[in-house]
Amino acid sequence: MNLAKAIVFDLYGTLFDVHTVARRCDGYYPGRGLDMSVMWRQKQLEYTWLRTLMGQYIPFEDATRDALVYTCERLGLPLSEADRATLCEAYLELAPYPEVPAALRRLQATGLPLAILSNGSAFSIGRVVDGAGLRPHFSHLLSVESVGVFKPHGEVYELACRTLALPARQILFVSSNAWDAAGAAHFGFKVCWVNRNDSPFDELGTRPLMMIKQLDELPALLGG
Amino acid sequence: MNLAKAIVFDLYGTLFDVHTVARRCDGYYPGRGLDMSVMWRQKQLEYTWLRTLMGQYIPFEDATRDALVYTCERLGLPLSEADRATLCEAYLELAPYPEVPAALRRLQATGLPLAILSNGSAFSIGRVVDGAGLRPHFSHLLSVESVGVFKPHGEVYELACRTLALPARQILFVSSNAWDAAGAAHFGFKVCWVNRNDSPFDELGTRPLMMIKQLDELPALLGG
Repeated sequence: MNLAKAIVFDLYGTLFDVHTVARRCDGYYPGRGLDMSVMWRQKQLEYTWLRTLMGQYIPFEDATRDALVYTCERLGLPLSEADRATLCEAYLELAPYPEVPAALRRLQATGLPLAILSNGSAFSIGRVVDGAGLRPHFSHLLSVESVGVFKPHGEVYELACRTLALPARQILFVSSNAWDAAGAAHFGFKVCWVNRNDSPFDELGTRPLMMIKQLDELPALLGG
Repeated sequence: MNLAKAIVFDLYGTLFDVHTVARRCDGYYPGRGLDMSVMWRQKQLEYTWLRTLMGQYIPFEDATRDALVYTCERLGLPLSEADRATLCEAYLELAPYPEVPAALRRLQATGLPLAILSNGSAFSIGRVVDGAGLRPHFSHLLSVESVGVFKPHGEVYELACRTLALPARQILFVSSNAWDAAGAAHFGFKVCWVNRNDSPFDELGTRPLMMIKQLDELPALLGG
């Protein structure tokens, strides 16, 4: 297909369901799991943005832990050190969305290289991808840790160009996170937004090239 | 007093109540005003952070408008162009918190220069401050527009040092926004966090020097 020469995927929320975490939270705080995981995810993202703006990069796992501490304090939920460690582990054991494994097989069959570009550390990306047995589909697992800033900073997207030795316009970037899709489009990638929840796109001055509801719609769009 | 040689205030949420806007929203969308103004404010902040990370500065007023458009679409609320303009006007007509005018008078009487350092444009800052008759208290009204990035980017805080010709450690920075207070503390300011809602402080690797609940507690802390 002529649209792009490689496909680069976001990980959290795109291939893997971050609200897998909600079930584990609900075990700790019955009836509060969903509220908690939504605030935890929101704060996790905020902390990656704010740390980057402050020039104070920390590993994603630390932002995840800090966001959990804040969330429990804000919601008045007790959190021992052991609980904290166990709950953070949940981010290493995420499940892929149900359609993802088969969709990746079909996309790999097109012959295009597939890569992941994620805010997570190399360790976390590896754990999550291996946990679901999906590693063989990817030529590269790219972590922001080598550039020391988080998405949507341009240096993150540039890392994919450099590693794949491709200009931005030859990369199709796939994300469920509208702010990530917007950042990638500003950078110059061709962007496919996986709009799983029928949400409006963020108003950040750009629009994705394609919108799908689930990843299994992508192979057909690429003629695969 | 020896703590600092100038006091620099955040504007939105610190001196002026951004949820003044909720009342106007409620006039348009009865019963939805608070939900709407909370999401609108959250998105407004997100858009300032994301735009800065993307290297795509836009005026604060544009981020405010974009956040309103997103919020109404997300909540399924109709928004005509005329409504949009009128609702955005609400951000130019904010009320100060009730204790603010008297507290500023007492702080000014200490002889320290007082300044505002805000994400707003020079135009918006001027309108809001003049609307409440508070301009005479301030030696400087500083807008991020001259540096082209939003808080908590260090260049914003640096603008206050440059303008006041003071090192960071000689400036007392006052904000109700925990993420702003954290950014200012990382930068090197002495920080007073106005914790109006009894919230936990954000987990961003730093703590404010002082915490108060309302601005009228500050003069006594400074011995004024």
